Amino acid sequence: MNKAFERPLIVGCGLIGTSLGLALARIGITAQLHDIRADHLQEAITAGAGVAWNQETDVDLILVAVPPGRTPDVLADFADQYPEATLTDVASVKVPVIDHLNSIAERLIAGHPMAGRELSGPQAARADLFDDRLWILTPTPLSDGARVVRLREFVHSVGGVSVVMTATEHDDAVALISHVPQVLASVLAGQLLSADLNHVAIAGQGLRDMTRIAGSNVELWTDILLANANPIQGILRDVENQLAQVRSSLAGDRSSVSAFLQAGVEGQQRIPGKHGAFESPYVEIPVMVQDRPGQLAALLLAAGEADVNLEDVRIEHVLGRPSGLIELSVLPEQGERLVSVLRARGFDVRI
Amino acid sequence: MNKAFERPLIVGCGLIGTSLGLALARIGITAQLHDIRADHLQEAITAGAGVAWNQETDVDLILVAVPPGRTPDVLADFADQYPEATLTDVASVKVPVIDHLNSIAERLIAGHPMAGRELSGPQAARADLFDDRLWILTPTPLSDGARVVRLREFVHSVGGVSVVMTATEHDDAVALISHVPQVLASVLAGQLLSADLNHVAIAGQGLRDMTRIAGSNVELWTDILLANANPIQGILRDVENQLAQVRSSLAGDRSSVSAFLQAGVEGQQRIPGKHGAFESPYVEIPVMVQDRPGQLAALLLAAGEADVNLEDVRIEHVLGRPSGLIELSVLPEQGERLVSVLRARGFDVRI
Repeated sequence: MNKAFERPLIVGCGLIGTSLGLALARIGITAQLHDIRADHLQEAITAGAGVAWNQETDVDLILVAVPPGRTPDVLADFADQYPEATLTDVASVKVPVIDHLNSIAERLIAGHPMAGRELSGPQAARADLFDDRLWILTPTPLSDGARVVRLREFVHSVGGVSVVMTATEHDDAVALISHVPQVLASVLAGQLLSADLNHVAIAGQGLRDMTRIAGSNVELWTDILLANANPIQGILRDVENQLAQVRSSLAGDRSSVSAFLQAGVEGQQRIPGKHGAFESPYVEIPVMVQDRPGQLAALLLAAGEADVNLEDVRIEHVLGRPSGLIELSVLPEQGERLVSVLRARGFDVRI
Repeated sequence: MNKAFERPLIVGCGLIGTSLGLALARIGITAQLHDIRADHLQEAITAGAGVAWNQETDVDLILVAVPPGRTPDVLADFADQYPEATLTDVASVKVPVIDHLNSIAERLIAGHPMAGRELSGPQAARADLFDDRLWILTPTPLSDGARVVRLREFVHSVGGVSVVMTATEHDDAVALISHVPQVLASVLAGQLLSADLNHVAIAGQGLRDMTRIAGSNVELWTDILLANANPIQGILRDVENQLAQVRSSLAGDRSSVSAFLQAGVEGQQRIPGKHGAFESPYVEIPVMVQDRPGQLAALLLAAGEADVNLEDVRIEHVLGRPSGLIELSVLPEQGERLVSVLRARGFDVRI
């Protein structure tokens, strides 16, 4: 039980399942593939993701990558067919999966690769879809420890970064960091529908940032929000209460308004930055550039030659103007060097 | 009355007032400067923003750049002293300014330069602070048209892009596009304060985008939110109702959840993109790069040499990994060329 899985069966040849097959092929493992849609199965095979499932062949790992609603039933079916195999899935909400499958809890380590694309289906699959992406695994107390270890190895072998937590922790966490932000972005963007276009026209970067994820896939997100309703509802209730308090404080309670904004400042600082470190106070170096091909590249080339590592690059545009402000985020100790190098090369640094 | 103002008086030598003086000096106009703080006045003069106010000298434009709460009184004071001069201000909420000053409505064209820095005070001033930034002017029906025209010329002369709307329109617009997003970002970030750090640790780009503005200056935003309480409260009430509806729909009303998400998709499409055009469907080209100085620059240099104009650049990082995914947004007709040029140069394009 100490080596990685070698005889995986992938059930569901959509984007995730086919990408998994391709990622396995990359390390010399041939997956068996199954899909109730013959066209998807054929596309996955043609793409090189593996071979058609043959019920005579042994299987040590069953990866179920079907739509969330069908995941528990499919896991149960295949668990019956392969009484020794380890099982996992890729649904983005975990408690509903675990809850249905107590009888196979010893062999089931549910999972959630935090990878995806705007496209779906086997033709959108990529061998490197999971590279450097978090992949949450949610074993239960009944899960066999050796299987958990092997599944983590498996995740690493296809390029992912494994993180272990309970299913409840996972669902609570994604409700907070992903599902509720999605709801807020959609509500805010929905407010723009009835707004005067002249009002929306003066929007700046703040509104763009706050509504970017509102453009996500409606059907997928309907599934996700419904599947994780309980934790989302709890946080939404808190958010509604908080908003009602702010609304009431705006009648003139200055100290409450300040305290609320201060809590936001402190909360934001808890979000990890790059490399899993907590947000370090990067300095932002604003530079005005002409909006022409190559200008941004020349700027960043200069930064690279100064041996400065850019933590972030943000581009701001303004209504009707042919130039743009670029904000370069760097570690404080690199800020001064960057500014002097950029100025020496004639860049319009605005600090 | 057809030429631009030539004898401006700037009252308030903080960041905005001093920057205005510097922007005027850049085009050969010497402003008179006044501040109740002698040190700020002296710093502004030393910086080259103008000369100390001399009550014997004529004034044709009074620019009041004091904190919002003091703006109406200061405008009224100086209107008395210069009965012919045009008056304007820079407070970020306009109705409270207009409402207090009916008696000088003919000469007052209130304004809001949408420019600022995280730093404040005269030492942070910059001659180019207003370059390419929107500057809203909010004349009333009583405002003299010729003065409005001259003030617009003035705004352009200091580098700004003037936009005219009523004070109510302005305050309603900024409530929607700036103040309510600020409240939502702060509420969401505030939720992270009580969250388990292990949950926050798996946050991705969505949460970062949604909370970025929560890091704003607390005192300034307390002023702004309180000054524009009415429009903000109205929108917050709508947002709360919408959230309560979503929360209730999550009990299983699939079509309502979908409809709500769809409204967000459509609302988001109303936000103008670059150059005031409405969001065009840019294509995103994902490229994986090593996290080393110069990698991003080399990538963008290649884009520049391909004569492709980047609409946006986004950098995604993942917990504990030394490489990062860069998303380049380009016009659809340039996407294919960019991909082939980048691939030809060995970049790891993930499309």
